[in-house]
Amino acid sequence: AETTRIAITPGDGIGPEVIAEAVRCLEVLRAKHDLALEWTRFPWPSHAWHEQHGESWPADALDQLRDYQAILLGALGDPGPADDPDRYLLSDAVSLGPLLDMRKNFDQWVCERPARLLPGARQYLKDERAKDIDMLVIRENSEGEYVSQGGRLRKGTPDEVATQLEVFTRKATDRIIRYGFDQARKRAADRLQEGRTRSFRTLDGRTCESQVCLITKRNALRHWGDMYTEAFEEISKEYPDVAVHHELVDAACMKFVQCPWAFDVVVASNLQGDILTDLAAVLSGGMGVAPSCNLNPTNPNMPSMFEPTHGSAPDIAGQGIADPTAMLFTTARMLEWLGRKDPSLALAGQELFDAMAADLAECGNQQRTSREIGDAVCKRLRGS
Amino acid sequence: AETTRIAITPGDGIGPEVIAEAVRCLEVLRAKHDLALEWTRFPWPSHAWHEQHGESWPADALDQLRDYQAILLGALGDPGPADDPDRYLLSDAVSLGPLLDMRKNFDQWVCERPARLLPGARQYLKDERAKDIDMLVIRENSEGEYVSQGGRLRKGTPDEVATQLEVFTRKATDRIIRYGFDQARKRAADRLQEGRTRSFRTLDGRTCESQVCLITKRNALRHWGDMYTEAFEEISKEYPDVAVHHELVDAACMKFVQCPWAFDVVVASNLQGDILTDLAAVLSGGMGVAPSCNLNPTNPNMPSMFEPTHGSAPDIAGQGIADPTAMLFTTARMLEWLGRKDPSLALAGQELFDAMAADLAECGNQQRTSREIGDAVCKRLRGS
Ligand SMILES: CC(C)[C@H](C(=O)O)[C@@H](O)C(=O)O
Ligand SMILES: CC(C)[C@H](C(=O)O)[C@@H](O)C(=O)O
Repeated sequence: AETTRIAITPGDGIGPEVIAEAVRCLEVLRAKHDLALEWTRFPWPSHAWHEQHGESWPADALDQLRDYQAILLGALGDPGPADDPDRYLLSDAVSLGPLLDMRKNFDQWVCERPARLLPGARQYLKDERAKDIDMLVIRENSEGEYVSQGGRLRKGTPDEVATQLEVFTRKATDRIIRYGFDQARKRAADRLQEGRTRSFRTLDGRTCESQVCLITKRNALRHWGDMYTEAFEEISKEYPDVAVHHELVDAACMKFVQCPWAFDVVVASNLQGDILTDLAAVLSGGMGVAPSCNLNPTNPNMPSMFEPTHGSAPDIAGQGIADPTAMLFTTARMLEWLGRKDPSLALAGQELFDAMAADLAECGNQQRTSREIGDAVCKRLRGS
Repeated sequence: AETTRIAITPGDGIGPEVIAEAVRCLEVLRAKHDLALEWTRFPWPSHAWHEQHGESWPADALDQLRDYQAILLGALGDPGPADDPDRYLLSDAVSLGPLLDMRKNFDQWVCERPARLLPGARQYLKDERAKDIDMLVIRENSEGEYVSQGGRLRKGTPDEVATQLEVFTRKATDRIIRYGFDQARKRAADRLQEGRTRSFRTLDGRTCESQVCLITKRNALRHWGDMYTEAFEEISKEYPDVAVHHELVDAACMKFVQCPWAFDVVVASNLQGDILTDLAAVLSGGMGVAPSCNLNPTNPNMPSMFEPTHGSAPDIAGQGIADPTAMLFTTARMLEWLGRKDPSLALAGQELFDAMAADLAECGNQQRTSREIGDAVCKRLRGS
């Protein structure tokens, strides 16, 4: 196969620490299976780069990245909960731009966030059925609430008015919904192969192997809510084998807590997806195990971008104690994605996932350094 | 005292069933304390009214309601999760308008939703500290994402574009934030009186009795996020005794699951508040115990509106098994609010809350009819 090239961007805070373990796993897998895989490490985007050059990344960064089939990102600057609002103000202004720029410029119109409560991961919910959480939240990643249109009139005065425009197109709506249905089918097929089944009821009382739940807030945000619903109703007719369901975003948050095991594929807008994926992540074990895949399924020549959902965690950065599990999960997902062109990468991705999951199941509740976790997973990879 | 007048609007589904129990409690309290309290029952807004008259309520409904000091609402049509999308489409179009109309026309610019995990209520989180959940989510209720500006261009075609404009004013931002700080102070004072304390850290390391956490999504929805943050920073200086905290809405959802007991007062925009209040409600025992108070703190001549957060639950309506606990909690909150003008009502509200909480603690996990729960609470009221 043609060599697959990955851009590695460790980023800030714990990013480089967790990326280091991912790279060690990639090395083991490459040597073991003689994979046609190469990677290049970039010092940007990052705070450090910004401090030296006055910008988060070079002017031609997007052009440089365009040559790669995937971007594996550690973590960008958002320091999370602000103990120091000034630092916060600075840091997110500086460093989150590239994340949104990559999504936009490489037309990564899907953000896929699987949420499975893997054995060994922390379980927040009391109900034992939480162990069965296995959903895929699909977030529209190209428009909607994130079009960055709006501004501040009479800024800083008591008469200020701030606006933000949400823009949704039927084209982007159709493609994300269709993507959701395709994933639902694929998941049902994968489950069948593993000898597992799930069952969901359709409106006319039949039983299906998979389900898509559409999220909107159409009782208040009527215009795009109606458009989403109409597109969903129409496209669902092409997938009579997939059960459909609607939830309002507020009710969905409740149900994620009350019965997360009842969801299969969930399709949501950019902002509502952002919120629901964080909630789904924590319910399936916390940010420590949540991958986020920004995909361009249309154009194989555009790089897709893979990042753990966690932030740069400045409070624990530099101590070597960040948990690389989410990063390894993310790396496994990346390999599976790249496997569409080179099937040996998909197998390697599956192997990495299995090793990481086995490690988590056995040692998930132990206090270990990043390095110790990386070592343990590498050892499994070598042995398996 | 001048007679306080309440408009009772039972609404749809389980609304009339839970309202019936609230009214019985009000009757007991009025007789017992000779309260200067009157109420009038309205058959609208409701589906039934709509079916007969072609509209959810009469043209002069708002004028009729304007004469009351409070509106006690059962539940409106949103049938929740749609098993039948057509019914859903119809029902929310028809029946939610009045809810938003009341909020707007009576300038109920605060939506207050207390979330306390009362003994006896269902606990979803594993962590024992969930018992200490005691937060007040304050939702901006007058603008933001809910201004209903936008539309659909080329509706129904593949080239459709749907837009929705978010509009935030500094005036409404300031007042909701200031309201949040005032509530934080009030809560600290109330706790002190009950001999309870909590402690929160300020940025400069001091310890405070209360906290306000501001929610935004300023790393993506920059314009109003920045305005909210600036207003918050400025107003917080007037309240050096209250600790401040920032969260992004996605991170806040995670932390609501990870450590809900760490929050005191939370201030959020209209949509983000809608989402967070539902999440807070379920974490503090489910919709069964969550009140929602739509308040106009500025103008005492405008009615405020009180509703349980739950919907009309058409699936269990008519069976007499709906849990009136949230409705009783809501009624207690209403009486406390009305107590600003007539202190005997505040005492009655406290009494109702205590009776309901005692009933919940003793029998919360029993299967009982609406009537049985109402009976039990009335009995406590008579006895206390
Ligand atoms: C019914 C709906 C319009 C309403 C809202 O979004 O405000 C409801 O969810 C609520 O929280 O009161
Ligand atoms: C950092 C931020 C802009 C981003 C988003 O909102 O998309 C993040 O929360 C995410 O989920 O990837």
